[in-house]
Amino acid sequence: MTSIRNEPGLRSESVRRANLSSIVRELHAAGPLSRSALVRRTGLTRSAIRGLIGELVAGGLVSERRSAGIGTPGRPSPLVSPVPDGAVVLALDIEVDSLAAALVGLGGEILEHVRIDRERGHSSLVAIVDDLAELASIVRARRSAILPEIGVGVAVPGVVRRADGLVSMAPNLGWTDQPLGSRLAHVLGDEVPITVANEADLGALAEVRRGVAAGADHILFLSGEVGVGGGLIVDGLPFHGVAGYGGEVGHMPVNPRGEVCNCGGVGCWETEVGAVSLLRRAGRSTSGGRAEIDALVLDAAAGAPRAIAALEETGRWLGVGLSGLINILNPRLVVFGGLFQRIHPYVAAIVDAELDRHTLRAPRRLVRVVAGSLGAEAPLVGAAELALEPFLGDPALWLRQPEMGASRNSTIAIRRVVA
Amino acid sequence: MTSIRNEPGLRSESVRRANLSSIVRELHAAGPLSRSALVRRTGLTRSAIRGLIGELVAGGLVSERRSAGIGTPGRPSPLVSPVPDGAVVLALDIEVDSLAAALVGLGGEILEHVRIDRERGHSSLVAIVDDLAELASIVRARRSAILPEIGVGVAVPGVVRRADGLVSMAPNLGWTDQPLGSRLAHVLGDEVPITVANEADLGALAEVRRGVAAGADHILFLSGEVGVGGGLIVDGLPFHGVAGYGGEVGHMPVNPRGEVCNCGGVGCWETEVGAVSLLRRAGRSTSGGRAEIDALVLDAAAGAPRAIAALEETGRWLGVGLSGLINILNPRLVVFGGLFQRIHPYVAAIVDAELDRHTLRAPRRLVRVVAGSLGAEAPLVGAAELALEPFLGDPALWLRQPEMGASRNSTIAIRRVVA
Repeated sequence: MTSIRNEPGLRSESVRRANLSSIVRELHAAGPLSRSALVRRTGLTRSAIRGLIGELVAGGLVSERRSAGIGTPGRPSPLVSPVPDGAVVLALDIEVDSLAAALVGLGGEILEHVRIDRERGHSSLVAIVDDLAELASIVRARRSAILPEIGVGVAVPGVVRRADGLVSMAPNLGWTDQPLGSRLAHVLGDEVPITVANEADLGALAEVRRGVAAGADHILFLSGEVGVGGGLIVDGLPFHGVAGYGGEVGHMPVNPRGEVCNCGGVGCWETEVGAVSLLRRAGRSTSGGRAEIDALVLDAAAGAPRAIAALEETGRWLGVGLSGLINILNPRLVVFGGLFQRIHPYVAAIVDAELDRHTLRAPRRLVRVVAGSLGAEAPLVGAAELALEPFLGDPALWLRQPEMGASRNSTIAIRRVVA
Repeated sequence: MTSIRNEPGLRSESVRRANLSSIVRELHAAGPLSRSALVRRTGLTRSAIRGLIGELVAGGLVSERRSAGIGTPGRPSPLVSPVPDGAVVLALDIEVDSLAAALVGLGGEILEHVRIDRERGHSSLVAIVDDLAELASIVRARRSAILPEIGVGVAVPGVVRRADGLVSMAPNLGWTDQPLGSRLAHVLGDEVPITVANEADLGALAEVRRGVAAGADHILFLSGEVGVGGGLIVDGLPFHGVAGYGGEVGHMPVNPRGEVCNCGGVGCWETEVGAVSLLRRAGRSTSGGRAEIDALVLDAAAGAPRAIAALEETGRWLGVGLSGLINILNPRLVVFGGLFQRIHPYVAAIVDAELDRHTLRAPRRLVRVVAGSLGAEAPLVGAAELALEPFLGDPALWLRQPEMGASRNSTIAIRRVVA
């Protein structure tokens, strides 16, 4: 669709940029690597690697030092490391009962992090964005130097239109058609791209890049608290439907005689496996939030029959709905996040038994169900990865503008370069 | 991962091959196109197009003639057409109540076609493969010249492992772990690649390439008779999970108090929307097959209350399950195939009403539900498209072996070139 193919000069420039991207991606994913390892992983020649590393060192994105090379024959291969401060993103996380901000650097290092509680219940878009902006100021103020922020990633418990960050629906915040992306751009400044995504999609991305699902090609991440969402990674890439609305597995109808759901439907999966039904089954206050769930889990650990029975019933419904999702999606790995990560030890056996009953044999044999490893921070980590994505895809765009580094006078120093 | 990037000679060869592929794909999809249209669609220069067309003409894959050019100023742009006989595939279709074979040429032209009834019920793999081989002989014998067959595509109503065409499960044929791919290779000869896929996946591909969903980026095709399957196309490509087992939407649990399913589960969607439940609701024989469904539809058209009520109840369950799938998958278009295509006029309104009740607003607004346009031949058409895929991806592999064209003495003349 472009004329690049027919212009040798342009082609070699696009090849150079693709090769820089390969190297930066490898270092971001794996951390420090020897030049030899980079040769193996990228398929580039040793001399090409040398030249490109030189550019990246000059741009402040990677550093290089001679490795000890103990136990290996010949000259040791220099060790190349990503420089966390070289490219930084602001990650924001809106949860039903908390808000968080973090500065995350190249290589995935969390440089600064702050999380505050918020009252459950509905809040205006303006109030939440103002709180997020304050959290952003706090994490930025903790750094003595101004960092090259290249993007903002935001996790939200709702249905998001990827194109502009409009939150079509976030029932637990009381939001319908709220322009979160543009409001954030207004308050934070629009010099860098702001990407808003569903928290379950970002949890999935986080567990694949930095968690228990590292390297898995096809995973389903289940994110549950009051609402239940799903994040799907297919062939290493997020799957979220034609407009970013996919993955709303909580609204799969599983029980025609069940409860009315927040969405207006009847018997949606989240009415059977969400926090509210679990607390109700255990005879606990359904408005108690995470503390109430923690108390329920402690009761179950102590052998309280009602808590155990409630977890078993939730586990049974988890297995029933999950079997449908496995039949539809044929994933390699199912990762339990949020609420489901916390209750995993108590429901794993019953979920497995239900999967054996309800899932087709072929996809059943292939799939494993595991607890997530990033806990409540999974969406925040995923938001950082998402915001870094344009940079990882074409780091040369940032290398090209060294003069801007000298003159920048705010954390938002680099022009918006993503279409 | 390859050294192509660093070898200018290899790179220009790979660029040439990619460009040949672009041209052949456009002609296969769109039919005859002027050179000017090819320039627009591929982004290649006029001179590059000229050279590549020359190669394709010499290889017998396309033909070129001066277009009339009426009403356009300047010299008319020559019209380039795919040559149907230039690259041919054998498409095979195993349905519960019929078997079919076709020879399909470049551009999607069905050159020869035969379909025979078969008894519903279980059949051995050996018997079905022998019948298919006989159908293949029949369509081949109808052509006076031997055609350059480059692959075989097979549609099967079951769960298929894409890697080798093992049918893990086809309950309506009575099959478990049947090596359909290797048995076909044994009987047909293994000189050309044989690709086996689920009929719903292939129906989806057919409707996107040649039917009502032409050009749609993200569709869900529902295929129903006794069993119910789904085929998903995402960003123009088939989605079928980590091993090809995905799309088994018929086995999404929707009714915990429902019927026991063939798969061993309870209340799977296909127990509520498949042909058996529809016939039972209408008080008809559940073993009657398509003729019985046709009679039921005629009754409904004549106003018979029981037939109408049965269709409405099936429509209601169609809407309930489909709302879950839309929430999970966020498709642009849902295409009703098979049984659902035939009953679409009688259930469309009730399905839409159920979608309004049960689907999240954002994905609901985006999606349309339509009847398919290829009817019972959708899986066969899809099987042909699948078998052509390796050729479309790299037609140069076939152009490179002109000497084989001269010496070939069977329809299976070209070596297996796909890994």
